[in-house]
Amino acid sequence: MVVEFIFVGTELLLGNIVNTNAAYLSEKCAGLGLSCYYQTVVGDNESRLTGILQTAMDRSDIVILSGGLGPTEDDLTKEVAAKVCGKALYMHEPSRKALESYFAERGIELTDNNWKQAMMPEGAIVLENRNGTAPGAIIETDRAKVILLPGPPGELYAMFEESAVPYLTGLTKEVIFSQTVKLCGVGESKAETVVKDLIDAQTNPTLATYAKIGEVHIRVTAKADNEKNAGKLVAPVVKELKHRFGKAVYTTEEDTTLEKAVVELLASGGLTVTCAESCTGGLLSGRLINVSGASDVYKAGFVTYSDKAKHRLLGVKKSTLKKHGAVSSRTAREMAQGAAREAEADAAVSVTGIAGPGGGTQEKPVGLVYIGCSVRGKVTVKKYQFSGSRSKIRESAVAAALTLLRKCVIEAS
Amino acid sequence: MVVEFIFVGTELLLGNIVNTNAAYLSEKCAGLGLSCYYQTVVGDNESRLTGILQTAMDRSDIVILSGGLGPTEDDLTKEVAAKVCGKALYMHEPSRKALESYFAERGIELTDNNWKQAMMPEGAIVLENRNGTAPGAIIETDRAKVILLPGPPGELYAMFEESAVPYLTGLTKEVIFSQTVKLCGVGESKAETVVKDLIDAQTNPTLATYAKIGEVHIRVTAKADNEKNAGKLVAPVVKELKHRFGKAVYTTEEDTTLEKAVVELLASGGLTVTCAESCTGGLLSGRLINVSGASDVYKAGFVTYSDKAKHRLLGVKKSTLKKHGAVSSRTAREMAQGAAREAEADAAVSVTGIAGPGGGTQEKPVGLVYIGCSVRGKVTVKKYQFSGSRSKIRESAVAAALTLLRKCVIEAS
Repeated sequence: MVVEFIFVGTELLLGNIVNTNAAYLSEKCAGLGLSCYYQTVVGDNESRLTGILQTAMDRSDIVILSGGLGPTEDDLTKEVAAKVCGKALYMHEPSRKALESYFAERGIELTDNNWKQAMMPEGAIVLENRNGTAPGAIIETDRAKVILLPGPPGELYAMFEESAVPYLTGLTKEVIFSQTVKLCGVGESKAETVVKDLIDAQTNPTLATYAKIGEVHIRVTAKADNEKNAGKLVAPVVKELKHRFGKAVYTTEEDTTLEKAVVELLASGGLTVTCAESCTGGLLSGRLINVSGASDVYKAGFVTYSDKAKHRLLGVKKSTLKKHGAVSSRTAREMAQGAAREAEADAAVSVTGIAGPGGGTQEKPVGLVYIGCSVRGKVTVKKYQFSGSRSKIRESAVAAALTLLRKCVIEAS
Repeated sequence: MVVEFIFVGTELLLGNIVNTNAAYLSEKCAGLGLSCYYQTVVGDNESRLTGILQTAMDRSDIVILSGGLGPTEDDLTKEVAAKVCGKALYMHEPSRKALESYFAERGIELTDNNWKQAMMPEGAIVLENRNGTAPGAIIETDRAKVILLPGPPGELYAMFEESAVPYLTGLTKEVIFSQTVKLCGVGESKAETVVKDLIDAQTNPTLATYAKIGEVHIRVTAKADNEKNAGKLVAPVVKELKHRFGKAVYTTEEDTTLEKAVVELLASGGLTVTCAESCTGGLLSGRLINVSGASDVYKAGFVTYSDKAKHRLLGVKKSTLKKHGAVSSRTAREMAQGAAREAEADAAVSVTGIAGPGGGTQEKPVGLVYIGCSVRGKVTVKKYQFSGSRSKIRESAVAAALTLLRKCVIEAS
């Protein structure tokens, strides 16, 4: 089956935002075995959107629209889609009530324009929005199935996973099954070299590599008449990848992130952890604590951005800071040791580096980061040289810190 | 004049890469006063690309294609464009020589398929590629001007700036100028209501609202014969928006984020700041420290996820935790006070709440967050009820904390 995407929003045409929804939906739909030949971005304009939607419905089986479901006058995707599909709009009571309680809970005054979000095309399947106010919808016509999703990524992702995926899976006879082997501490080109023979020989299952910051994901996808048979095709390839990459594989579970794998690893070993962050300034703790249940292993952490804070909160020696500087192997070591001591934690990770854009020197350039890791008193320090913008460097440092922590915990157990 | 983009590449349809070229070209062309109504992504497929290019040439004055200029068999953008424009391809000698020396300099063997990159449509303006091997081209026809650019961002950006911008500037007489009024602490539908009369009456300049987590941006855009005159049209509307929204306007600068505005506000008042985070677990500090130069105001911060950490690191009373619980107004107050004291900071923000998905009760549901703010000893605590996923709740809390900190600092000064 052929799917096509229409992204609605003048902010996309003006370049105010990057269309990350396009990559998300493309990857997900490819994973479901749907072919995609066209994607269009169009503004919040009735006649142009009408034309694009008609063309899409003529050439594709499924048309997914994203954006333009909100309460403002600009938002007209639902109105246009209903008109093109020949459906009237009616007040959908459950959505109206959901809207009412959403605003009541927050004690926010509900302005008149909000009600239009609860208007739905006749006969449409209404998709609940758990992360926002605008529900989505599926309109089924003889020409095509039209799926309306919200524009904000947080709302779109959840609604797609929860409502659109089950619907789309029901439309196709062939079952697609995929499993992702997630690696940390291995570069993309290295990973590609290791699996080149498998990629060259692939037919069913297929392999694809995706580079993330500090991670590489290898997706193994098979088609079959049912999930069990597709799974049987995927299993030996996943086993082979685990064999080739060894401990660099941190999970093969779809919903396990690197931080979740690390939290689970710590919990299984009965270890608590703390972080002492300078250039990453809380992002590492932030990622660990985003894991539901992180409270079992994470109790306390420190953001020590100034030299004084490193000394006062973590006990980094003044002489160390003076002799080696804040960005040094020695400081990273003392930060990790001090954090473990002050937080009474079994493990501690420290990050100190130069995130830029200023502050670099010939000797200590922007992107230089030291990461320290203490596990039950044994301290490891590693030096890294990252590149890119300030935020890219900080994110790379966070991924490297999680990877080093994982490695040290595995080695200590 | 109307411009349209066509992005060619199966990797975009599969979601392997995010289309950052789209945002780049959109923003640049808007800045040149060109209107853009459509953008299409299509794969490396001759018949589909032919159809899309013909449609684009019928409805737009300028069509910019990106991708598919390389040496492989998949790369067929130039061939298709030449055919649609009725131009034959010929070997362009300067490009052939450039290709030869590019490979010679790098000591790489030049494979046969590489020569096709030097084939150019008859009569086309050839655009040199300083960062790669595939030159670009401009084909002028009676229907439209067709501009071929490479796909890799580094090559596209340089070629666009150096060759396409001067060409496009020569075509247009109009200039576009826009300014964004950024608000915090105001909901989107509330903001929309406040500016409804301006939006209804808009012609030149136009207004558009964009919702972000915890923020609303209002973009004012005008067209005129030169930038100065466009600026004159924008200025009174921006002034009116500032008047209507008052202190909710945190900036009108394009590159100022909420955290940057807060850091600048603190720096201008000579204030230092610290954070004590529970459910946001470092994200608030992380956002502040992402501001280059944050070290002037931010020295140290605390992640106190457990009750024990709140007591030990911040001095929150055991009796407070026992009587009111960790998620309470009283705990938020003592966290802010303790953080200010321990970090010796002038201002402190504390966040304590239930990010979910577990841990909620009837009395204290998921999404309940207390934020405390201490500025020179004066403490304010506010209660919030957020919704959505764990990470959405945490991001909403961070935005609310920055907003409350800004408000308290303004009131204290």
